[in-house]
Amino acid sequence: MRKNKADHIGIVETQYFTFACPPDKFILESNESIGPVTLAYETYGELNEDRTNAVLVLHALTGDAHAAGFHEGQKGAGWWHDMIGPGLAFDTERYFVICSNVLGGCRGSTGPASLNPATQKPYGLDFPLITIRDMVNAQKYLLDHLGIEKLLTVVGGSMGGMQALQWVVSYPHMVASAIPIATTWEHTPQQIAFNEAGRQALMADPNWNNGDYYERRVPEKGLSVARMIGHITYMSDTSMNEKFGRRTKDGEKPFKFGPKFEIESYLHYRGYDFVKRFDPNSYLYVTKAADYFSVADYKPIGKLLEGIKTRLLVIAFSGDWLYPPYQSQKIVKICRDAGIDAKCRTVRSHYGHDAFLVEFEVQTRLYRRFLKKVKETAFGPEGTPPIVKSFYG
Amino acid sequence: MRKNKADHIGIVETQYFTFACPPDKFILESNESIGPVTLAYETYGELNEDRTNAVLVLHALTGDAHAAGFHEGQKGAGWWHDMIGPGLAFDTERYFVICSNVLGGCRGSTGPASLNPATQKPYGLDFPLITIRDMVNAQKYLLDHLGIEKLLTVVGGSMGGMQALQWVVSYPHMVASAIPIATTWEHTPQQIAFNEAGRQALMADPNWNNGDYYERRVPEKGLSVARMIGHITYMSDTSMNEKFGRRTKDGEKPFKFGPKFEIESYLHYRGYDFVKRFDPNSYLYVTKAADYFSVADYKPIGKLLEGIKTRLLVIAFSGDWLYPPYQSQKIVKICRDAGIDAKCRTVRSHYGHDAFLVEFEVQTRLYRRFLKKVKETAFGPEGTPPIVKSFYG
Repeated sequence: MRKNKADHIGIVETQYFTFACPPDKFILESNESIGPVTLAYETYGELNEDRTNAVLVLHALTGDAHAAGFHEGQKGAGWWHDMIGPGLAFDTERYFVICSNVLGGCRGSTGPASLNPATQKPYGLDFPLITIRDMVNAQKYLLDHLGIEKLLTVVGGSMGGMQALQWVVSYPHMVASAIPIATTWEHTPQQIAFNEAGRQALMADPNWNNGDYYERRVPEKGLSVARMIGHITYMSDTSMNEKFGRRTKDGEKPFKFGPKFEIESYLHYRGYDFVKRFDPNSYLYVTKAADYFSVADYKPIGKLLEGIKTRLLVIAFSGDWLYPPYQSQKIVKICRDAGIDAKCRTVRSHYGHDAFLVEFEVQTRLYRRFLKKVKETAFGPEGTPPIVKSFYG
Repeated sequence: MRKNKADHIGIVETQYFTFACPPDKFILESNESIGPVTLAYETYGELNEDRTNAVLVLHALTGDAHAAGFHEGQKGAGWWHDMIGPGLAFDTERYFVICSNVLGGCRGSTGPASLNPATQKPYGLDFPLITIRDMVNAQKYLLDHLGIEKLLTVVGGSMGGMQALQWVVSYPHMVASAIPIATTWEHTPQQIAFNEAGRQALMADPNWNNGDYYERRVPEKGLSVARMIGHITYMSDTSMNEKFGRRTKDGEKPFKFGPKFEIESYLHYRGYDFVKRFDPNSYLYVTKAADYFSVADYKPIGKLLEGIKTRLLVIAFSGDWLYPPYQSQKIVKICRDAGIDAKCRTVRSHYGHDAFLVEFEVQTRLYRRFLKKVKETAFGPEGTPPIVKSFYG
């Protein structure tokens, strides 16, 4: 039933916004600069007259701007199709939902595969290192362009959750609330380690050629292994047991070290499927941005969070061992210590880190209730002055 | 203090036992056969007159026969140095301890890097697939050679624990007791998945050359990535936080995607250190053996365990997420359901899967007490008839 409702979004088109056109520059956290910068984005629903119903949805590591609806002539729906649409968690009859591909990505936004205006060739490794803060700063340009001064909420899972947290500390006056999902206050050594193993697998592929492969063979094998590693961390022991167990693949007499178990074939499929849609260099840049992420890298936490009025609903999943619930609880503790209205909800789920892309019903309940309250307190109901109180009692 | 005692083992030498010399053959579980087969092994302590004090120690995936003492002119002690020696858990003043490198390995035992007598070149991928059962069958030849009819105990962690379990079902009359540590009844899809990601990383290295690299360049990068993946799974989120946190390496201006965090440098070091001592093809064969491992693949469990009198002490570590405690508990449940005297002890530890190579004190206490009781009941004290009772009450 929810699926049918979501289908009402129907056909959508990705749009493109370009800024920092020379002689303008987009200054990065590293003090390097690039320009022009393009962000691919999609919107669902209508912005209301007083511009108080905008929701910014932020994607994870390898996601894109296509969060809901369908592209003309294509079967697959957007990556959060079950959460965005008429009557859904992010109800497009009430909210104006925006999703943009991150800076450094490869799905329409400027990244290492984009043309370097200085050389008229893809940037490759000449693309500067970018950070989560840079991604958020670029999104700020997009919101200015769309005429949005304040977001009802900013929401995202995994690396999307890092961006949501970064929005809260970079532009607190622009975000009435935030919903960081299955994420962390700072990337931990284990999270860095998995990313680094993936990067090393990719860079070990001779076709990677120090990032210069755009007119040659793509480092398919390396990127595929990186993705396999990622996929293992997105699932859980339990979900793999349920989905695959020790079932083997039938078929022709296999190569000695070919896939024998279904889990192996599944990982191969996910690896090679990924190669079709993702730029290997982008994989390096976005994983590095996640690894560098630590909200409080620059200022003492008290100073950083001083005066922030944004409300936070932080979501964790019990079976997520890559971004375990204690990391969400830590976000909430830090925020509360600074007087910020924040609450953590841990959703019981077997689905590991992927749960935010699977557990729709409970997320829908949580986010609808939260947004309703945020809307009342952040902008005031029907023209009454904002109610200033904590809604967590 | 324990270290000093262990040093009393002093200098040891690896020995070699060769069997299945043509026209003899060693028949594998796959029905393929090889020969001659050599096992590298070491022994510590003395076999007593009635041959009732032998302990077989089994190593993990990439271990070797050198479990204790020192090799002439080398600094590093054996891999379980703190557990084997005078007064230690496996007290060499009481027990005769044997450790052998597995079939398929590369540390002195026959494996894919050994000379194929048919071609006088290294086997490479002509080496047949081997299983945990094959490893155990080869060890049985070694014990026959050493004149040991019954082991006081068979003990090992991780893949060593799989071999210990296999000993129990393959040769129950030869093992008075078994101590499977941090292991599983059957390899799970998650465990298979991590191994497969490592194998794919290795085989993606063009220097691997379909296993034929013995007179060329070794697939260093691929094997190194495989080892990095392994190392992440051997540690825990907590132990990585404690050991590395988000500390960065100082030094020269680094390559954009070079190691920045200490955890990254550590993984690089472990990866390249491994390349020096391990044959890439062996890595494929031993991980595949672990993946195929399922004790009850052939017979109904009841039939398989019928009449087994071996006592089991199964050890898990609370922070081991690669072989989580529930898997040890499952071993014990299955054994108890079949009337086997088995007990699981879960040791609290932050060290992840590596804990069996780190947590010496508590392991020492547990194993000494267990062995004392096994010795009383399995062979009878000082010539009295064996006491037939459960020592778990």
